[in-house]
Amino acid sequence: MTDTTTSTFKPGKGAGATVGVAVLGMGTVGTEVLRLLEERKDEFAARIGGNLEVRGIAVSDLSKPRPGVSKDLLTDDALSLVKREDIDLVVEVIGGIDYPRQVVLAALRAGKAVVTANKALIAAHSEELSEAAEAQGVDLFFEAAVAAAIPVVGPLRRSLAGDKVDTVIGVVNGTTNFILDAMYSRGASYEEMLAEATALGYAEADPSADVDGYDAASKAAILASLAFHTRVTADDVHTEGIRTITVEDIEAAKAANSTIKLLAICERLVDEQGQESVSARVYPALVPTSHPLASVNESYNAVFVEAESAGRLMFYGNGAGGAPTASAVLGDVVAVSRNIVHGGRGPGESTYARLPIADFGDVLTRYHVDMHVDDKVGVLAEVSNVFSEQGVSIRAVRQEGLEEGARLVVITHHAKEADLEATVERFKQLESVKAVRSVIRMEG
Amino acid sequence: MTDTTTSTFKPGKGAGATVGVAVLGMGTVGTEVLRLLEERKDEFAARIGGNLEVRGIAVSDLSKPRPGVSKDLLTDDALSLVKREDIDLVVEVIGGIDYPRQVVLAALRAGKAVVTANKALIAAHSEELSEAAEAQGVDLFFEAAVAAAIPVVGPLRRSLAGDKVDTVIGVVNGTTNFILDAMYSRGASYEEMLAEATALGYAEADPSADVDGYDAASKAAILASLAFHTRVTADDVHTEGIRTITVEDIEAAKAANSTIKLLAICERLVDEQGQESVSARVYPALVPTSHPLASVNESYNAVFVEAESAGRLMFYGNGAGGAPTASAVLGDVVAVSRNIVHGGRGPGESTYARLPIADFGDVLTRYHVDMHVDDKVGVLAEVSNVFSEQGVSIRAVRQEGLEEGARLVVITHHAKEADLEATVERFKQLESVKAVRSVIRMEG
Repeated sequence: MTDTTTSTFKPGKGAGATVGVAVLGMGTVGTEVLRLLEERKDEFAARIGGNLEVRGIAVSDLSKPRPGVSKDLLTDDALSLVKREDIDLVVEVIGGIDYPRQVVLAALRAGKAVVTANKALIAAHSEELSEAAEAQGVDLFFEAAVAAAIPVVGPLRRSLAGDKVDTVIGVVNGTTNFILDAMYSRGASYEEMLAEATALGYAEADPSADVDGYDAASKAAILASLAFHTRVTADDVHTEGIRTITVEDIEAAKAANSTIKLLAICERLVDEQGQESVSARVYPALVPTSHPLASVNESYNAVFVEAESAGRLMFYGNGAGGAPTASAVLGDVVAVSRNIVHGGRGPGESTYARLPIADFGDVLTRYHVDMHVDDKVGVLAEVSNVFSEQGVSIRAVRQEGLEEGARLVVITHHAKEADLEATVERFKQLESVKAVRSVIRMEG
Repeated sequence: MTDTTTSTFKPGKGAGATVGVAVLGMGTVGTEVLRLLEERKDEFAARIGGNLEVRGIAVSDLSKPRPGVSKDLLTDDALSLVKREDIDLVVEVIGGIDYPRQVVLAALRAGKAVVTANKALIAAHSEELSEAAEAQGVDLFFEAAVAAAIPVVGPLRRSLAGDKVDTVIGVVNGTTNFILDAMYSRGASYEEMLAEATALGYAEADPSADVDGYDAASKAAILASLAFHTRVTADDVHTEGIRTITVEDIEAAKAANSTIKLLAICERLVDEQGQESVSARVYPALVPTSHPLASVNESYNAVFVEAESAGRLMFYGNGAGGAPTASAVLGDVVAVSRNIVHGGRGPGESTYARLPIADFGDVLTRYHVDMHVDDKVGVLAEVSNVFSEQGVSIRAVRQEGLEEGARLVVITHHAKEADLEATVERFKQLESVKAVRSVIRMEG
């Protein structure tokens, strides 16, 4: 049982050496990274023990004016740039998957260290990329890929390397958190708050990556991989978004002393035989207002970790934006450059545990089921029977009369996702249940 | 302007090699570290790419029974143990200053890497220890010295290495936080809650290190050193404890929508000429209930960081105890062992910025002054005059009638500590001011 990530090291260039840097992409993050590389030049030199020199910048449109940037540095041929002999370190802040994958692979194979902020790339192709980094003994760092400036990748890779992580739960998507927070505090609808988020620039014109949970799923895959030393890709993550959350759901959350958050949940499961597996999933869930994650407001992010020895930890801060992302990118740039100058290498991908990915149906969770039922004798008994037939135990029930019929809210104990789903399916066929108004999971 | 901390590297022992470990101290932390080194042996081997073997344990009393520990490993001669040829890594969890200093220095000078949880040692002797580590090209890691399992040292050393940190404010002492939290929530006196903390084992028989702020001062010194790349020792930290906090102070906090926390504050100051300096200080202060640090309850710790690009970050968790401290120690053990096996070295002390330590009198802060005054015409004018004579601007005033005289609460704007102090001194001489009931700083 050995870690394959530490076999080869590139020798250092020597104290005082200059690290040649290529920056790929001049969007918000790339521009901020370039600005700070210049502004903090002397500080970085002191921290690295060598100098950083930007020797090339790849952009897609060479004709666009780039005030303050020397024309000589610009190129639209990223592939050639990353292979150049005077480049030691490639900073990838383009975004997307296929093109950056091609360029980052080329860079790693040419023996260049890579710092990237690209969560989708890492979540989809970490195996191929890590192997390329491994083969050349270079660093592949991506602190900015999860929760921007909040140190999460580093703590999981290093600080908690002596511990056994059981759970990582994150509020890792600022757009959806802004929308849910606004729905909660103002009682507004999803559509209204999405429109506001778009107007404020928090949501993209096509909001799908955020509101359908794909962005959070990439982050969940990365967090689960780091926490459990097991390769988890975005495809392994069960993903549900927030489009279906209604004003009534928010009211139900308030009635249950909870709020609704889109959570990225990474969990180590242990079955009755002691066999461990990994669950990574993204969905909106009720979180009790007393839980630290409940008070993560607006576009802030937070990652909550539970480890065997450390207990409960939380990391909180700005999870998006040009400056916070640049902070994380530059932290990696300094660390990687130290290794380029002095030799040595940070921890690479660690997948020795190779735990299986749990079937989503086997995940233990709790449900908050809100139903519209007939207001007549025996309905509660009928509903209770369905739960017990499926082996789901009820934790709390609340019934209130409506103009027509009654509202029945049932909160379950932990049960298998598959059993809970089957229970809800049964209700849809039950005559005395007029409608299943909402089903929301409960976490925390 | 170069960083002197990365000049020499010890070559790695080679993949699959065994790292010989000496553990100094078998108190709560040492015992837990030893237990987990055994229990997580295979995982650590996989993470390190080499094996860990405990080859010696130093204890003060050899005659004490140590169930489960081989007698052959025990010694009361730590100095000889750390110099032994089969030891690569020394874990120091003895506590105290003078004796561990002697042993850790001997270990470093013999070319052994050191992991320590000893905040007092690092805060007092980091210069000498770092120089010894530097000379031999070995790691000296101390994540556990600040806030136990909460990753703080790592994030400041690495994740934020590309950023410019402006402020670090921590609730870093669990004992005082427990006492202040209990005073706040139960309206009890300091003496009662100290007695309870002692009974629960949260406070030592001699509580001075906690309640007089010395423990927090050591942590402030370490945090300020890391944040500002400047050597700050515990002697540089202005330190006040919580013994003087009264039930009335807690009530005043509530009236100001605040709570009282013992804060470790590290701040980069910039004077009118643009000259930077560093302030590190520990005192109880009012913190608005809306501030993230206000909700750090019981014996939890949190460290709040403000950096130029990252913005506001917070790290939260268990700041003390055997298991959380062992988690941090073992994270360092894994990182240092990777370097011992594969070569390379983590970032060492970085003091290139060499900022001067600010005079405490020049620190800008705000005061909450609670006075008992005569209830007669002109008192408010008289008090206001004193403030303005000292150049201190008033932010808010509240006056209420008492049976005899009146209570006057004045909240100031930011002003120099020296001016605020002079103002309060003047009140003590003013005839119309019967008593200055309390003076508490306000932060956050």
